[in-house]
Amino acid sequence: MTALPKEVLDLICERKESYIKALKEAVAIPSISASKNHHNDIHRMIEFVSERLRSLGAKVDIVPNGSYPPIILGDLKSSESNKTVLIYGHLDVQPASKTDGWDTEPFELKEKDGRLYGRGSSDDKGPVLGWIHALEALKDGLGYFPVNVKFVFEGMEESDSEGLDDLLIILKDTPFLKEVDFVCVSDSYWLTTDKPCLGYGLRGVVCFELWITGAKQDLHSGVFGGSIHEAMTDLIALMDTLVDKDGKIGIEGIYDDVTELSSDESSLYTNIHFNLEEYKSSIGVNKLITNNDKMNTLMARWRYPSLSLHGIEGAFSEEGAKTVIPKKVGGKFSLRIVPNQTVENTVTCVKKHLEKEFNKLNSPNVMEIKFDGGEAWVTSPSHANYDAARKATKEIYGVDPDLTREGGSIPVVLTLENTTNKNVLLLPMGASDDGAHSQNEKIDVRNYIEGTKLFASYLYKIGQ
Amino acid sequence: MTALPKEVLDLICERKESYIKALKEAVAIPSISASKNHHNDIHRMIEFVSERLRSLGAKVDIVPNGSYPPIILGDLKSSESNKTVLIYGHLDVQPASKTDGWDTEPFELKEKDGRLYGRGSSDDKGPVLGWIHALEALKDGLGYFPVNVKFVFEGMEESDSEGLDDLLIILKDTPFLKEVDFVCVSDSYWLTTDKPCLGYGLRGVVCFELWITGAKQDLHSGVFGGSIHEAMTDLIALMDTLVDKDGKIGIEGIYDDVTELSSDESSLYTNIHFNLEEYKSSIGVNKLITNNDKMNTLMARWRYPSLSLHGIEGAFSEEGAKTVIPKKVGGKFSLRIVPNQTVENTVTCVKKHLEKEFNKLNSPNVMEIKFDGGEAWVTSPSHANYDAARKATKEIYGVDPDLTREGGSIPVVLTLENTTNKNVLLLPMGASDDGAHSQNEKIDVRNYIEGTKLFASYLYKIGQ
Repeated sequence: MTALPKEVLDLICERKESYIKALKEAVAIPSISASKNHHNDIHRMIEFVSERLRSLGAKVDIVPNGSYPPIILGDLKSSESNKTVLIYGHLDVQPASKTDGWDTEPFELKEKDGRLYGRGSSDDKGPVLGWIHALEALKDGLGYFPVNVKFVFEGMEESDSEGLDDLLIILKDTPFLKEVDFVCVSDSYWLTTDKPCLGYGLRGVVCFELWITGAKQDLHSGVFGGSIHEAMTDLIALMDTLVDKDGKIGIEGIYDDVTELSSDESSLYTNIHFNLEEYKSSIGVNKLITNNDKMNTLMARWRYPSLSLHGIEGAFSEEGAKTVIPKKVGGKFSLRIVPNQTVENTVTCVKKHLEKEFNKLNSPNVMEIKFDGGEAWVTSPSHANYDAARKATKEIYGVDPDLTREGGSIPVVLTLENTTNKNVLLLPMGASDDGAHSQNEKIDVRNYIEGTKLFASYLYKIGQ
Repeated sequence: MTALPKEVLDLICERKESYIKALKEAVAIPSISASKNHHNDIHRMIEFVSERLRSLGAKVDIVPNGSYPPIILGDLKSSESNKTVLIYGHLDVQPASKTDGWDTEPFELKEKDGRLYGRGSSDDKGPVLGWIHALEALKDGLGYFPVNVKFVFEGMEESDSEGLDDLLIILKDTPFLKEVDFVCVSDSYWLTTDKPCLGYGLRGVVCFELWITGAKQDLHSGVFGGSIHEAMTDLIALMDTLVDKDGKIGIEGIYDDVTELSSDESSLYTNIHFNLEEYKSSIGVNKLITNNDKMNTLMARWRYPSLSLHGIEGAFSEEGAKTVIPKKVGGKFSLRIVPNQTVENTVTCVKKHLEKEFNKLNSPNVMEIKFDGGEAWVTSPSHANYDAARKATKEIYGVDPDLTREGGSIPVVLTLENTTNKNVLLLPMGASDDGAHSQNEKIDVRNYIEGTKLFASYLYKIGQ
């Protein structure tokens, strides 16, 4: 594969300020999908991006999505003989307000010390603009597009990607998806703050709600306490059986489907650039479950299941004291699942476990279990798609990217793989400290600009 | 003791509609102490009641109480030779709105099927007006007051009685409290819906907050789950050691100070009018911890400690799913304590237990324990104060009242006892189903009117 012509790289360097200006405009649109009140802002973001896609010469379909904001299907066809890349991105953002503890206004992009602060700067407006700018630079620098590109840009990613799966399944046998050769998603992050990586796996997740109903109303703990079987007591007893102090999941059979670690796979972990002390200090903990071993820590996050207890609905959760016995309480927990584990088997194990444990309590209360899940995903990084990205990374950043998985879930990745039957690549633009869903989300100027070059180089290489 | 003259009873019967009208006016003032916005309404209630006390001929002091609504000290002195009763009541109410599930507007008194629905109708505006009406009827029917009366009416009872304890302690050696012979509190309820009772005991309560701090920020459970010691896992493990499925408290030494049941005390329980089936059905449970035994159920509620888990602060408590690992979580629980147990010993036991259990976890997280408590109270019902109330009850309702304790706490009762060194009587007006802190609070017309007669009869008997 030949290197990306210097003209393209120079153009990207020259256009740096206009790229930052575009990101500023995008960040200024508070396209929060969690809030219905902001759905008109998602429509504005859809207009903003559609306009730019049309300027590239793409055909843009804005597909209605029920009561949710529509989905952009873009088609930039340069030549029948070109390879076709499908690029996925999202235009909505997590909620943010200064009262959450932001140092700056979340919807005003602020540059400070080489960092661009603002909600969506890294997740996912920066990367979406990066693709558009990379394509503009390719077109202007080369005089032609080296690839055909399809775009799937949605506005509900931070709220379960409502409607997207259904749409992709409908499109499965249409030219839009059948023409795709490669899929690329830039909605993930480097493992560290300094070294690029390519992602080849994601854990799945099953979210559970464990409800216990006791009395028919909340009761005064002074008046009734001591005489009744309280729903909270049952719930806490059950939640305590789920995971032990060392993070080991207490559910029978839950580890049965986890694949054995092969030596091939093991070797993928040994050389990954990852500093445990930096990891601990960034989250403020002084001891890890994994006994401060790098490989075990990475595997605990990527290739083994984990169970987290998130909280309880229906119980007192405010400041101060309220001495009430809640009538009905729902414990929230989730299980991150890994390749070879399935949502179905996980749910079967969890239900069986909870029913057994609840029977032990011999309680007159009523138990109910709800769940919602998405499968894990892993692909082989020995594919032309990864090869192009690896070479592009080396070209732009001067290093070979690490091959990493992520512990989180991007459910659309699996759907993209299943509906195109093509290889999916996770090609991150942002760094590990971007704080995607946190206060003070940012993207480094370096990641934004070099990332745009990386995207251009990747597309150029895919085209060869 | 001679019977209350018929003139007084007749007056009370004649004035029924005006009593209901007065309660309507009182209920219409939303004197919610939990909300600063409604503190001006507490001031209105203070004016409303002070005006009526002055009409009786009482001297009314409105004592400032820092940033909280003031406290009414009333003094109705008829004769140096008369006995003096101190009456306590409160003018504030619990929050209420129709959206909480009320069938009617909570601050508009509505009569239906012999019941007066409205916030504060039973807790505690009905009883406060009952005392005023009883005294008016005594004055008009007899031509004189048979007793001297002191009034302590506060406006912060539903919010920790802010400032009241301090004021009573200051007044301890002043004539206002030194002249008192008997204390009577009507801020409790019958044990059932149909039979009057007198209260001679209350459990105390110690409220705890058990805080666990893990990471320095909330973390994504996909990205970090499996690698760190989560604060919620520790908290749930600790909360699960506090109380077992049968309500037995798991804290070493907690039962050591509970007095043995004497046969004398035991006999107080045997004849109490209490229907277990009605109790279970009223709260919607089909099995009690106490194996459906009446005496054990009453003792579990009144004379034994109990521990309730109220909820968790800092963890996800809303509807839906949020897959976050909370950085810092605080478990709320309370221990109802009984006579001979003390707040101090209880706190010592709980702290020792939690420290031991937390050490077992060998966790890098940080534990912190906060608490706030009030002592239990019990008095001998063999006192002239109870004798007068017993005879008054027999006179008005035709039955001997049951002698009962309550499982809840009214901290001011202990302070009133300690600052007057006089016997305190709990003389309820309302019934067990009044729903003091619940939706659709009500007082039965029967309880309101016969209760006013009961108060008049009690005061008349105390005066003899």
